[in-house]
Amino acid sequence: MDSETAEEILDATGRALCERGYAELTIKDIAAESSLSTAAIHYHFDTKEELLNAFLDHLIEDFEGRLAADPDGPSERLSAFLEAVFTPAEEGSGAFAVALMELKSQAPYQETYRDRFRRMDGRMREEIETTVSEGTASGVFAETDPGTVARFVVTAINGGHVREVALGEGPGETRAVVEDFLEARLGWTPEGDA
Amino acid sequence: MDSETAEEILDATGRALCERGYAELTIKDIAAESSLSTAAIHYHFDTKEELLNAFLDHLIEDFEGRLAADPDGPSERLSAFLEAVFTPAEEGSGAFAVALMELKSQAPYQETYRDRFRRMDGRMREEIETTVSEGTASGVFAETDPGTVARFVVTAINGGHVREVALGEGPGETRAVVEDFLEARLGWTPEGDA
Repeated sequence: MDSETAEEILDATGRALCERGYAELTIKDIAAESSLSTAAIHYHFDTKEELLNAFLDHLIEDFEGRLAADPDGPSERLSAFLEAVFTPAEEGSGAFAVALMELKSQAPYQETYRDRFRRMDGRMREEIETTVSEGTASGVFAETDPGTVARFVVTAINGGHVREVALGEGPGETRAVVEDFLEARLGWTPEGDA
Repeated sequence: MDSETAEEILDATGRALCERGYAELTIKDIAAESSLSTAAIHYHFDTKEELLNAFLDHLIEDFEGRLAADPDGPSERLSAFLEAVFTPAEEGSGAFAVALMELKSQAPYQETYRDRFRRMDGRMREEIETTVSEGTASGVFAETDPGTVARFVVTAINGGHVREVALGEGPGETRAVVEDFLEARLGWTPEGDA
């Protein structure tokens, strides 16, 4: 499958997920959000699960792409990470958060989804750990265990997702919690190096 | 409805949720977990949603009941809070976490569920804020803003729930994250007053 077709199908999947949620989603819904026919999509993806696997892979790649390509230093790298996590990638991100929560709820029944959520979690923790290690080594951040910081941050990020869906809270609330934690633990501030 | 019947229906609902999850759950499933007939349950609850509302109310009451009734001090009160949150109330709690996540995913569509999740969240934050205020005022805890501590803890608790369901992580991981945070922020330790 050429990458243009893949891109179109996966973008359409994102829009269809916002519209319909996960449970009700059909290949037909996705086709309706694209220039492709149901048959054309089925040609590339046998099942809804296969398509959602590709969609989750796409989500991880998209996240990676929003991390700092060439950061000035660990402080900027951390800021870029938070931007990548907390800035809505697209319109209708509230609806997308709901659909993503439905997908996470399916993970106990769908090992392939669980694998991908674990991979995304691993990438996030890795990015934070590496950044904090750099920062403590160079003296930009206060001395602290990078693994502990990474665990805190991803746990809070997960929590923010639930709060957005279950409580209707804005993502900015959790962003403030995470920034407050990083400020207290590392001496880092959102504006840049102290 | 007498409280014994209510208790039986709600306990049966908990077991049925573990068995079937939320989406597939029917009144018939709940009846099968109890000594009551489907008709008898329907007599008390018109719809599945009404029943789940009562179930969520029951969950909040149950949580309240597990908080420290007469704590020796803020340190013990905090320990009791963490016990109430992180100790599985019953067997099959992994399956229950999955069903509860499904319910949280429904909150955007079901205002009555959202109201209850907000109420539970408010109670948790209130308990932490009050406990931390007492602790800082009496010098047992280091000086810190109780509201900030409360926000972090409930966000982490929510995060732990997602991690359990989506990643298959044990709740002990998040408990460690929260205890580490409280130790660093308050000088509190799980064993009791420092």
